[in-house]
Amino acid sequence: MPHQQQELISTLHECMTACNHCYNACLQEEDIKMMTTCIQLDRECADICGYVEQAITRGTPFLSELTNVCAAICEACGKECKKHAHNHCQHCAEKCFTCAEACKAA
Amino acid sequence: MPHQQQELISTLHECMTACNHCYNACLQEEDIKMMTTCIQLDRECADICGYVEQAITRGTPFLSELTNVCAAICEACGKECKKHAHNHCQHCAEKCFTCAEACKAA
Amino acid sequence: MPHQQQELISTLHECMTACNHCYNACLQEEDIKMMTTCIQLDRECADICGYVEQAITRGTPFLSELTNVCAAICEACGKECKKHAHNHCQHCAEKCFTCAEACKAA
Amino acid sequence: MPHQQQELISTLHECMTACNHCYNACLQEEDIKMMTTCIQLDRECADICGYVEQAITRGTPFLSELTNVCAAICEACGKECKKHAHNHCQHCAEKCFTCAEACKAA
Repeated sequence: MPHQQQELISTLHECMTACNHCYNACLQEEDIKMMTTCIQLDRECADICGYVEQAITRGTPFLSELTNVCAAICEACGKECKKHAHNHCQHCAEKCFTCAEACKAA
Repeated sequence: MPHQQQELISTLHECMTACNHCYNACLQEEDIKMMTTCIQLDRECADICGYVEQAITRGTPFLSELTNVCAAICEACGKECKKHAHNHCQHCAEKCFTCAEACKAA
Repeated sequence: MPHQQQELISTLHECMTACNHCYNACLQEEDIKMMTTCIQLDRECADICGYVEQAITRGTPFLSELTNVCAAICEACGKECKKHAHNHCQHCAEKCFTCAEACKAA
Repeated sequence: MPHQQQELISTLHECMTACNHCYNACLQEEDIKMMTTCIQLDRECADICGYVEQAITRGTPFLSELTNVCAAICEACGKECKKHAHNHCQHCAEKCFTCAEACKAA
């Protein structure tokens, strides 16, 4: 596998991990009512990142189509997370924006 | 869930089923060497259809992005299947083209 | 595909749909703080049901192993949903218990 | 996330990658007719490893149930791969057996 794809896979994996961590942490927050969009987007983003990771390792011929949709979902999740001061949200926002850039460059 | 989305889910499910059936049948064909692209696209198509089915039932906000990429994969799979005379390939091609149309209309 | 497997697929699909519906509805409830376990189990259950559905359509040789773990997850999700009076929780509990039975019989 | 779970995730990821690499390589082999079981088990194994990876990052309460079924699939895939002299099969067998052990210890 080319070095560039290995980096993309790592970035997707870090984003999936940050989203799932943020997802669980949001569910435990006092202000959970304000976190529902964040919770929903975390799941969307974790799931597409995991899907694209799997697809790249099987050599999908649809890399650019899949990374385009993944970039859109990462950006939306990052923008929502960015609004919230919780550490897990800020960390997740950062990983989402990094992943969105990596997906757009793929 | 709106009636239109229930129809889309049924169409995706039929396409996934046809692709996985074609996948297994191709692996048993005498001319398997000619079926490798079909086998790979069947897996791609079955997986994205299953993914989109799940995403719709969870009310994804990225319906049009996901159905766009699904339509592209269904079309590619349908075109490859169409080339082969096996019944499972012709049946799969039909389900793929139907699913591509449904995805584009979503 | 045998008739029995077609029924199992339908049952898994209904359970996935009920879990994802319950998931979204729980996120909108006033008493969301009491629903966090329900939200987490709904996601677990929807995901495994979708996975097993895909696996059956590709003729997995691990049907009984996968349906066993699916049954355990359906039961846990059903028991949690059963505790809550919301219609979506009671409906989901019913679908989960039905799916658990179908998985155990597979 | 505990260090032990991070190691398990890495092991699952390496197994998924090896299985998908073996899958694609098998489809290009001259003796493809002898590789059909290997191809099918590679897909099964790659898919469950990816699923369990996702499940661990979301803190699934069903870790032992999921790693048990994953171990069974990894072992079956490893045993089949072990039969074939191709480098990708031997490499995949090794990764599958390592992953099966890690899953059993989880």
